[in-house]
Amino acid sequence: MVGRLANGWAARDSSGHLSPYSFHLRETDADDILLRVLYCGVDHTDLHQVRSEIGKTNYPLVPGHEIVGEVVEVGSQVKNFKVGDAVGVGGIIGSCGECSLCNSNLEQYCSSRVLTYNHLRQDGTPTQGGFSSAMLVHHRLAVKIPEKLAPEQAAPLMCAGVTAYSPLKQFKDSSGEVVKGGILGLGGVGHFAVMIAKAMGHHVTVISSSDKKKKEAMEDLGADAYLVSSNEAEMKEASDSLHYILDTVPAVHPLQLYISLLKAEGKLLLVGAAPQPLQFVASELILGKKAIEGSLMGSMKDMEELMSLWVEKGLKSMIEVVNVEYVNEAFERMERNDVRYRFVLDVAAWSTPLE
Amino acid sequence: MVGRLANGWAARDSSGHLSPYSFHLRETDADDILLRVLYCGVDHTDLHQVRSEIGKTNYPLVPGHEIVGEVVEVGSQVKNFKVGDAVGVGGIIGSCGECSLCNSNLEQYCSSRVLTYNHLRQDGTPTQGGFSSAMLVHHRLAVKIPEKLAPEQAAPLMCAGVTAYSPLKQFKDSSGEVVKGGILGLGGVGHFAVMIAKAMGHHVTVISSSDKKKKEAMEDLGADAYLVSSNEAEMKEASDSLHYILDTVPAVHPLQLYISLLKAEGKLLLVGAAPQPLQFVASELILGKKAIEGSLMGSMKDMEELMSLWVEKGLKSMIEVVNVEYVNEAFERMERNDVRYRFVLDVAAWSTPLE
Repeated sequence: MVGRLANGWAARDSSGHLSPYSFHLRETDADDILLRVLYCGVDHTDLHQVRSEIGKTNYPLVPGHEIVGEVVEVGSQVKNFKVGDAVGVGGIIGSCGECSLCNSNLEQYCSSRVLTYNHLRQDGTPTQGGFSSAMLVHHRLAVKIPEKLAPEQAAPLMCAGVTAYSPLKQFKDSSGEVVKGGILGLGGVGHFAVMIAKAMGHHVTVISSSDKKKKEAMEDLGADAYLVSSNEAEMKEASDSLHYILDTVPAVHPLQLYISLLKAEGKLLLVGAAPQPLQFVASELILGKKAIEGSLMGSMKDMEELMSLWVEKGLKSMIEVVNVEYVNEAFERMERNDVRYRFVLDVAAWSTPLE
Repeated sequence: MVGRLANGWAARDSSGHLSPYSFHLRETDADDILLRVLYCGVDHTDLHQVRSEIGKTNYPLVPGHEIVGEVVEVGSQVKNFKVGDAVGVGGIIGSCGECSLCNSNLEQYCSSRVLTYNHLRQDGTPTQGGFSSAMLVHHRLAVKIPEKLAPEQAAPLMCAGVTAYSPLKQFKDSSGEVVKGGILGLGGVGHFAVMIAKAMGHHVTVISSSDKKKKEAMEDLGADAYLVSSNEAEMKEASDSLHYILDTVPAVHPLQLYISLLKAEGKLLLVGAAPQPLQFVASELILGKKAIEGSLMGSMKDMEELMSLWVEKGLKSMIEVVNVEYVNEAFERMERNDVRYRFVLDVAAWSTPLE
């Protein structure tokens, strides 16, 4: 039995400010693993939740859902992890384990999913995220981190990376024709999407509203082409050319511009959730058998596959590692797009281990 | 060589009125088949084109794209048809025959497709539709009508039927779990969709804005359930229950109502082209890995499969056969939904055969 007082960084109100916060963890259940958090990525969703901009936030709130930690205790029923294992945790820490979704590697869509923070477990205890010394997770919702992958490298794969990977994996097997993909928006998810699509052998076009990110897209991330959406001539020339576009833009944007870039049977893969309605004209989809497809994070299997890809191809997550005490500044800089491409908080350097 | 003067019914302006019209057919090319039209279905698109409500109509216009005819002449390169064959023709009479779409039974999406009417062939000759004694069609864009299928029964399958079948066929193999489908809109396409989905073994729910069509949906068409979209309690109970909804509504409607009925991974299959934009909220798709997918008519292969299904299951298209001279009244009645469910024009009873 280890101590039960966790220390983390929490929001107390919707101001957006986090400060140190201690809270009691409940006992480790038979199916739980208890982990000491090592690193945690910083995502826009964290900030939205801190500010109560997505549904209603219950304070105090400890955010963080791109977590890598070390197992410090396992429940009596846990066979797949042991103390000392490095594990990753993403946006959910529980699911029913019995429905057809849970049984087909789509557990993130389970109607009984338990979100990593600002949610209640089925026993009524609130969940708190990874900006904290320790967490309890159902053992089915954790993945082993490969030995060859540094924990801070793995952390942002747990949400940003897998959010890109999960919808892209349907285009993995490109027997014959080279798959031509577009990536719309070059933030945390977008930069991973370029790296993943390139690793899958796709011809990758980054689509952006200006040419500001052209150099980094082509030189740093290895994109094959760059398209400025306000350039009508360029857009017209690129029409009917892409098998998919991964659309990471979390604000209202004109879908018809991007649908027109898709080949027949092409897909607009939506992962950025604009709160206001998006529009399209039916014939834009009908005339080319095109689709708009939503995708949420990824499954445990997706995470494992993605980490294998990272190891196999020797990929490097482009991150800026900072101490968790820097979190408020990290939020500010993330908001003004001043990070290439993801903050990862070093939580263990600050927190007190469970004794 | 047969005579080249065809006689049909044409619109001369956007008034919506058709009248008899004679026109010259060009010579039968090496790849063409020339057919005497026997029957032709009447579709809303015909009326929209007659009125120049979809793009710009060139007059005189002979509409009609649900055609069954008899081959009266074949070009020198045609091996798959002979004089006397009963053949069906749908919305396109030509395609490039060389692109990846043409080579994978998706020729209706070929960027060089030639529409059955109000369009130009690559040689510059205008196309005219099936409300006419005779037509020229590229032999790849015609299908053989099975002997066991009456020509007037086959005619509406060439567009309305196959428009329903083509997107539904992805749900054909239901190994294990019963597929639960929804059909939105009970017109020409919708009634075929109910019959096809039932023939595939699906559990079929008809979704409508009122309960006016409940009796016919359940008793005449064999639907398993009926859902009134304005009944909030019913709709809530049915949420997350359907694998797909075939959406045939060609006007603006609130997609979120129907998306909420879909299970995780469910698809809203759009075949009705509302001219004004449709709206949805991204999270409605993202949180359930749901998709909105467009589909246009069907391929030749789809038509063959659909006719086989018709013969195999002994299905009957619900049609009202009328003389082509009745076409103006048929348009009027179709517009006020006064047909169960499709007019089929008996063209041969009126027209003069090519001598």
